[in-house]
Amino acid sequence: MFKQLGLIGCGLMGGSFALALKRAGLVRHVVGYSKSPSTVIQAQKMGVVDQAADSALLAVSGSDLVLIAVPVAATEPTFRAIRHLVQPGTVFMDVGSTKADVVTAARRVLKERLKHFVPAHPIAGKESSGIGAADANLYRGCQVILTPLPENEPHQIERATTAWVGVGAQVRQMSAEAHDAAFAAVSHLPHLIAFAAFSAIARQPAGDRLLELAGPGFRDFTRIAASEPSVWRDILIANREQVLAQAELFKTQLRLIESAMRDGRPEAVEALIRDASSGRAGWQMNAPRGAGSGNSGSGTP
Amino acid sequence: MFKQLGLIGCGLMGGSFALALKRAGLVRHVVGYSKSPSTVIQAQKMGVVDQAADSALLAVSGSDLVLIAVPVAATEPTFRAIRHLVQPGTVFMDVGSTKADVVTAARRVLKERLKHFVPAHPIAGKESSGIGAADANLYRGCQVILTPLPENEPHQIERATTAWVGVGAQVRQMSAEAHDAAFAAVSHLPHLIAFAAFSAIARQPAGDRLLELAGPGFRDFTRIAASEPSVWRDILIANREQVLAQAELFKTQLRLIESAMRDGRPEAVEALIRDASSGRAGWQMNAPRGAGSGNSGSGTP
Repeated sequence: MFKQLGLIGCGLMGGSFALALKRAGLVRHVVGYSKSPSTVIQAQKMGVVDQAADSALLAVSGSDLVLIAVPVAATEPTFRAIRHLVQPGTVFMDVGSTKADVVTAARRVLKERLKHFVPAHPIAGKESSGIGAADANLYRGCQVILTPLPENEPHQIERATTAWVGVGAQVRQMSAEAHDAAFAAVSHLPHLIAFAAFSAIARQPAGDRLLELAGPGFRDFTRIAASEPSVWRDILIANREQVLAQAELFKTQLRLIESAMRDGRPEAVEALIRDASSGRAGWQMNAPRGAGSGNSGSGTP
Repeated sequence: MFKQLGLIGCGLMGGSFALALKRAGLVRHVVGYSKSPSTVIQAQKMGVVDQAADSALLAVSGSDLVLIAVPVAATEPTFRAIRHLVQPGTVFMDVGSTKADVVTAARRVLKERLKHFVPAHPIAGKESSGIGAADANLYRGCQVILTPLPENEPHQIERATTAWVGVGAQVRQMSAEAHDAAFAAVSHLPHLIAFAAFSAIARQPAGDRLLELAGPGFRDFTRIAASEPSVWRDILIANREQVLAQAELFKTQLRLIESAMRDGRPEAVEALIRDASSGRAGWQMNAPRGAGSGNSGSGTP
């Protein structure tokens, strides 16, 4: 049970966390701050926030749990704004999609208060963003990766875990470096590819006509191409070494299929597709590998 | 109104068409043939087919509408099997995802009966395949592309259009070549990319662990990677020139973003992402360009 949640950033991620924590009866009081005054007013009206704070620092004051749910580029300034009010017993977390850069910024800014910071990345989201989309069920069944620091004390990691489990998530721990390498593969590269694929079609002279013909396969494949540019600019730049390395692996695999097509080798094309198809059909989100139900998926030509 | 539908191939596409046509009251009787006897028995039990035929030829006998809904590679043998029973007044269609190859096969095999064949590509599908997944609403609101031949008579194209409109689809016409060029961009290339991207991740030494971490963005992005290998082998081989040309455009766009990342140019990265993001957020399936509601989509980091 937490006495007070200090919420810095009242968007989809932060708002959903506050709602879910209240719904679970895990927090008594939520103090919220947003750069935009109208957002925090809306958060109050929606019952996400009990009290509006005029600054990030005031949202931290008296809070034993703090969630920093701001764009990655705003994380370091937020650390600077709040570091003087981090009390013993307070745990604070972020929700950023990259972790090594956040840890570096935290080290630089927080110094002896570093131990209070437990870096977190909830693997959740939905089509719409902003406080209006906040949803007490956003984190239900999703994974949250914690990348604890050597400086963290066990009870701080435990408090962080309690909060995420309380909102319905499964919690995993790994190092910030392992996190960034893994998400370069399963999240950042797919976004990079989706951005490039959508633009490559839209920019053709007949682009508008092509897009009129696209069906449900294209819709799902490119959904993540609509992601927020400033957020993804920060992710792709912060994690560029890992993302570029993953892009090379992808291009090698793409070339394999392309050359089998070019040479007119149907058996080779089929074998390469089957590799992906059987793997993807047996994959289930949030399931340990091998535990998939083996449902035979089939796509949309 | 059709007197009798001859259904050759009782899978998702064919079964859904028969169900929808019956539901709409547009056909009196459905005669179905499947290579697999158990499939046609199931189709009868489900009320998709009124009468089982022992051969494709017998399914055509007495039918004024014939739908060939078999894997692309089986289309030419099907043409050979049925060509001697195509009667005056009969219209037959396929459902293949590539059209130039089907038209070439039709020309080769059907000769003076070619005028009865109206090539069709319904842009529909779902996760599961087979007769068990047949759904009277599969074609509701979807697009169907007809690529009529110079040999078709206007009333044959009209009959084909009537059938698809009757099952709830929007019908468009274009040439087989324009069709294949367009779908290379909006369907075949996305599949090729999804196959390569899934395998590139799964084949890494840590592949299983990576896949355990993947979230909803990855799930949607790779959904089409689970597509049927033999179907997609045929499509990628049949339309390889166009698909390879589209792949070059994609790789050029990918290189643009990669080099902006590598050079550490955040503004350039953001501009390239924004190009895709604003385009994708304003896109709606089956809507003429410019008619999108401008909903601001946002992806899942």
